[in-house]
Amino acid sequence: MIKEYIRSYKDFPVKGIDFKDTSSLCNSKGFNIANNFMYSELLKYMPCDKIVGIDARGFIFASVLAFRTRQPLVLCRKQGKLPGPTVSKEFDLEYGTDKLEIQSDAISRGDRIIIVDDLMATGGTMCAVIDMIKEFNAEVVAVSCVINLNTLGGADKMHEQKIPFYAAVEY
Amino acid sequence: MIKEYIRSYKDFPVKGIDFKDTSSLCNSKGFNIANNFMYSELLKYMPCDKIVGIDARGFIFASVLAFRTRQPLVLCRKQGKLPGPTVSKEFDLEYGTDKLEIQSDAISRGDRIIIVDDLMATGGTMCAVIDMIKEFNAEVVAVSCVINLNTLGGADKMHEQKIPFYAAVEY
Repeated sequence: MIKEYIRSYKDFPVKGIDFKDTSSLCNSKGFNIANNFMYSELLKYMPCDKIVGIDARGFIFASVLAFRTRQPLVLCRKQGKLPGPTVSKEFDLEYGTDKLEIQSDAISRGDRIIIVDDLMATGGTMCAVIDMIKEFNAEVVAVSCVINLNTLGGADKMHEQKIPFYAAVEY
Repeated sequence: MIKEYIRSYKDFPVKGIDFKDTSSLCNSKGFNIANNFMYSELLKYMPCDKIVGIDARGFIFASVLAFRTRQPLVLCRKQGKLPGPTVSKEFDLEYGTDKLEIQSDAISRGDRIIIVDDLMATGGTMCAVIDMIKEFNAEVVAVSCVINLNTLGGADKMHEQKIPFYAAVEY
């Protein structure tokens, strides 16, 4: 049902990638369906203290979840976008490398954290964010994505770390 | 009331800029206050057909507004992020230049559009997005931002174009 609103593009952004376009989902009736699915799943892991959204498409879904649960939204941003001291982590992407940052005072020791992104693929990005949250001595209580590309191993990495993971759509 | 949750950073990201940090707002009780203000103002311009959010912090507030009004969310993204044909526009930033894109089939002729971003400064970004929406032969019925830096002229440019503009916070 949600899948019918997600367009696929072969060889985007680079050759060999079958890109799942969440922008087509946002611009459709599927946006609310996906938001409602993610919200109802997230409730199972409440209470949490903060919701972390990953730059940039993760913000879209994390923001709605933070608003609906009345939780603060922590922005995990690409390098150089956040002012002040940050905790940062470099990591390998499905295509290339990247660096993410969270402000050093954005998360407190012992906080229960739910991480939200648009897509789980190899899990490289998500593992980097989990590592950063561990540096805060906080606990990741769940990971929520719109899409899981289940042959690429990201969900397995969550399972190995005993972190509950759910996605609204499986490919 | 919202202002107390927005931290300022001098000389970020470059010398001479007094950066207003919306990430501190998101990670606070001010997040809901700002969302609620933007929502109640936006209702004055309904009905609309689509809400356009500007990459990346605009997504945060546009997404909640799209969810609450049950409108589709159109992503206006930085260059190279959207698959398929796009309408694009290069423009000058407060610090540097940039290029934004919207998918060519994301907006229809005659659509009533509300544009959402985190911050209005000189209005360079916003005017570029308005120009793009005109290329779709669609109508911008309102522009909504969290913060307006009212000495920098962006709000005046909206007024000159007779486009209603509101912000949750004025500096």
